[in-house]
Amino acid sequence: MQFKLTKQFVENLKSKIQNRDEKWIQSNVFELHHADIADVLDELTNSEAKYVYYLVDEEVQSDILMDLQEENRDRLIESLSTKELADQIENLDSDDAADILGEFPEEKIQEVISQMDDEDAAEDIVDLLNYDEDTAGGLMQKEFLVVELNWPVNRAIMQLRKQAEDVERVINIFVIDEEEHLLGVLSLKRLLIANSSTKIAELYNSKNIISVKTSDSAEDVSNVMEKYDLVSVPVVDYQNKLVGRITIDDVVEYLKEEAEKDFQLATGISEPMESDASIWRISKARLPWLIIGLAGGILGAKVISGFETSIFAHPELAFFIPLITAMGGNVGVQSSAIVVQSLARGDQNFGGILSKIWKETLIGIVNGLLLSLIVLGIATIFGGFELGLVVSISLFTVIIVAAIFGTFIPLVLNKYNIDPALATGPFITTLNDVVGLFIYFSLGLLIFSLMR
Amino acid sequence: MQFKLTKQFVENLKSKIQNRDEKWIQSNVFELHHADIADVLDELTNSEAKYVYYLVDEEVQSDILMDLQEENRDRLIESLSTKELADQIENLDSDDAADILGEFPEEKIQEVISQMDDEDAAEDIVDLLNYDEDTAGGLMQKEFLVVELNWPVNRAIMQLRKQAEDVERVINIFVIDEEEHLLGVLSLKRLLIANSSTKIAELYNSKNIISVKTSDSAEDVSNVMEKYDLVSVPVVDYQNKLVGRITIDDVVEYLKEEAEKDFQLATGISEPMESDASIWRISKARLPWLIIGLAGGILGAKVISGFETSIFAHPELAFFIPLITAMGGNVGVQSSAIVVQSLARGDQNFGGILSKIWKETLIGIVNGLLLSLIVLGIATIFGGFELGLVVSISLFTVIIVAAIFGTFIPLVLNKYNIDPALATGPFITTLNDVVGLFIYFSLGLLIFSLMR
Repeated sequence: MQFKLTKQFVENLKSKIQNRDEKWIQSNVFELHHADIADVLDELTNSEAKYVYYLVDEEVQSDILMDLQEENRDRLIESLSTKELADQIENLDSDDAADILGEFPEEKIQEVISQMDDEDAAEDIVDLLNYDEDTAGGLMQKEFLVVELNWPVNRAIMQLRKQAEDVERVINIFVIDEEEHLLGVLSLKRLLIANSSTKIAELYNSKNIISVKTSDSAEDVSNVMEKYDLVSVPVVDYQNKLVGRITIDDVVEYLKEEAEKDFQLATGISEPMESDASIWRISKARLPWLIIGLAGGILGAKVISGFETSIFAHPELAFFIPLITAMGGNVGVQSSAIVVQSLARGDQNFGGILSKIWKETLIGIVNGLLLSLIVLGIATIFGGFELGLVVSISLFTVIIVAAIFGTFIPLVLNKYNIDPALATGPFITTLNDVVGLFIYFSLGLLIFSLMR
Repeated sequence: MQFKLTKQFVENLKSKIQNRDEKWIQSNVFELHHADIADVLDELTNSEAKYVYYLVDEEVQSDILMDLQEENRDRLIESLSTKELADQIENLDSDDAADILGEFPEEKIQEVISQMDDEDAAEDIVDLLNYDEDTAGGLMQKEFLVVELNWPVNRAIMQLRKQAEDVERVINIFVIDEEEHLLGVLSLKRLLIANSSTKIAELYNSKNIISVKTSDSAEDVSNVMEKYDLVSVPVVDYQNKLVGRITIDDVVEYLKEEAEKDFQLATGISEPMESDASIWRISKARLPWLIIGLAGGILGAKVISGFETSIFAHPELAFFIPLITAMGGNVGVQSSAIVVQSLARGDQNFGGILSKIWKETLIGIVNGLLLSLIVLGIATIFGGFELGLVVSISLFTVIIVAAIFGTFIPLVLNKYNIDPALATGPFITTLNDVVGLFIYFSLGLLIFSLMR
């Protein structure tokens, strides 16, 4: 029932495009869901995609546009005239329209908007462009259903029929007073059941109305929608006037992007990237993290070279360098990951920074003791009891220090409004490598000279 | 407007509970949204929470139950009698009810179900319990709105009013034939606009109907809903009979859990955990990864000790051990992260494994060349040109090997149905550490002896 994109279909289509076989394309491509058409176009060259794109209905064109991969969409938009673009923009939901226009320079935005025929739509978009992308204002759309408190059901239904033309997804109906203040929510269900002369005032729910402010962060919006299990949430301004709504699909997109970003930061990739991006772009995106790693490695070399005489006297010290650095890195990332997650979840946090660090220290002591004991035995077998002592005491110290750093750094980053997930990546690992090596060799020097 | 949980409120409530001040609790707690009441209960001891819980209406009780933190919910459920639990279960949506019952042993499930008064609800739950948690069947609920093709609008509305009592979220209406085969979707919007004698057959949309099968994986469901931008999707069985629907909030929950899981695997924590879990539980969850790291470190020590004479002759070789291991780890995690993400996204993949590996190799060559050149200069300053050669050639080799392993391992894991995200954690890092060290010291031995 659902369309499955195959290599064969794409090749077939390519040859039909070459032969300008409109009929085949019409009956094989236009029948598909616009999201599938977009998938097909993503597999074509720009000129092929353009050919097919211009064949479809104008209304479907804008749907396809939103579903294309970003790179392909940008290319296609570039090839549209200002008037064509204005027509496309008009067919989009206001939030999507603002997202696309927001990428352009000021001048181009003005040009496109001046070419739009629907002045109300243009006004909505101009309004949305004022908001920061990562706020409720930046996520919301201007299309929603609204009824006034003192309307009877039959008038409400008449009004809603008109409004519904512009609203893609009818989920719930907001209730306002004459000054557009948000008063409550009316479910379609209630409306469906109600008598036609009943006043809206008697039907709607005014208790525990959940709304967000235009300036609320996207993260807050997503937490509110998740907590209260909402599919759509009204957005109000500072005077509690209803100005938009956010539907959950926009929040899902935001959540997915955030999760990918966190994962990318944790794994050392500096920007979101489709896996089919060019080798140069991918290389460039990964390089910053590798250079941090490189710098850490060089710092590490500097630390070790400072203890060259120790290594000369006890080459077996070198055996456990990887163990010390690896464990410091692992523990640090574990601790920071917990902090990053609880920050992202917006956990209620009655305890302060100190109590978090204290807890991680305790966990460090528990795990550190156990692991150090294992290592004491093993390192003793490798190079005698003295080496065993050095490795196990260092490992214990390194684990605790790494746990403290791992907790502390994301909290500090968060305080200065830097994405704390940054701390789960090469950053923490590198820091812990250098500090760990210093601890290891210092302790080595101390213990070997004490045991003499 | 929204409730903000404060430490003071919790303390105040605790003292009111002690004084059994029902009136205060009624006017200060019962007015809140059930999600907020759950948040409040999460801050209380079990006996305090139970006291408040029994005071609220039975209908609100079940809502609160679903919003509690899992630990607290389990404790509360344990204190309910079978009959009380059966009553609560009846008030829940079928998918939530099945989720809660699914945690119990067979016997207890039967007991609870036999105590339910509503036989239809009991039947729905029994049916849902048959499906695997991570499939469309496990995510779906039995409450949805449905109309038959040959009904006129007025009959449909009458039927829908009845159905709507059980359906929490009215989003769209599914259209079926007399044998319950899914034929299409009808938007409430169309119904709102239509004439009362019009047949459903003339109103509904039968083109590009998107549905999922009960056996489809949760990942597939989430990809389909995202691709086609759906707020709810019908679930059909193998005969295309409509058996349930999945709403996007359930998918959001699934997505959040998956993202957390990936992040946890990448950062070395073996199971999802609230940040306020006990120190013992957290220590235990992290220990497996640390032990992998420890084993890697010991293997590394074994490799290095095999080259003890080289270190004795060239202690400066030890300087760059951390650099080699860190870079191998970083590159490996970067490559595997890309693969894991593209697998999770369900990217269309025309190229095979080989082309992915080839691409990562090319990226490795680009980054490897650049970084090796930098390191050649720096290592030469540290310990002469020979050391520079050894470090830079090893680094280049290690980066390429790490890129290949990083790509290969998650693909292999995925093929054997093991979560590929496992490969972004300590696993890859440890493997690359050991292999990298072996390459480094072997090349060191070779180059130093060649240059003699």
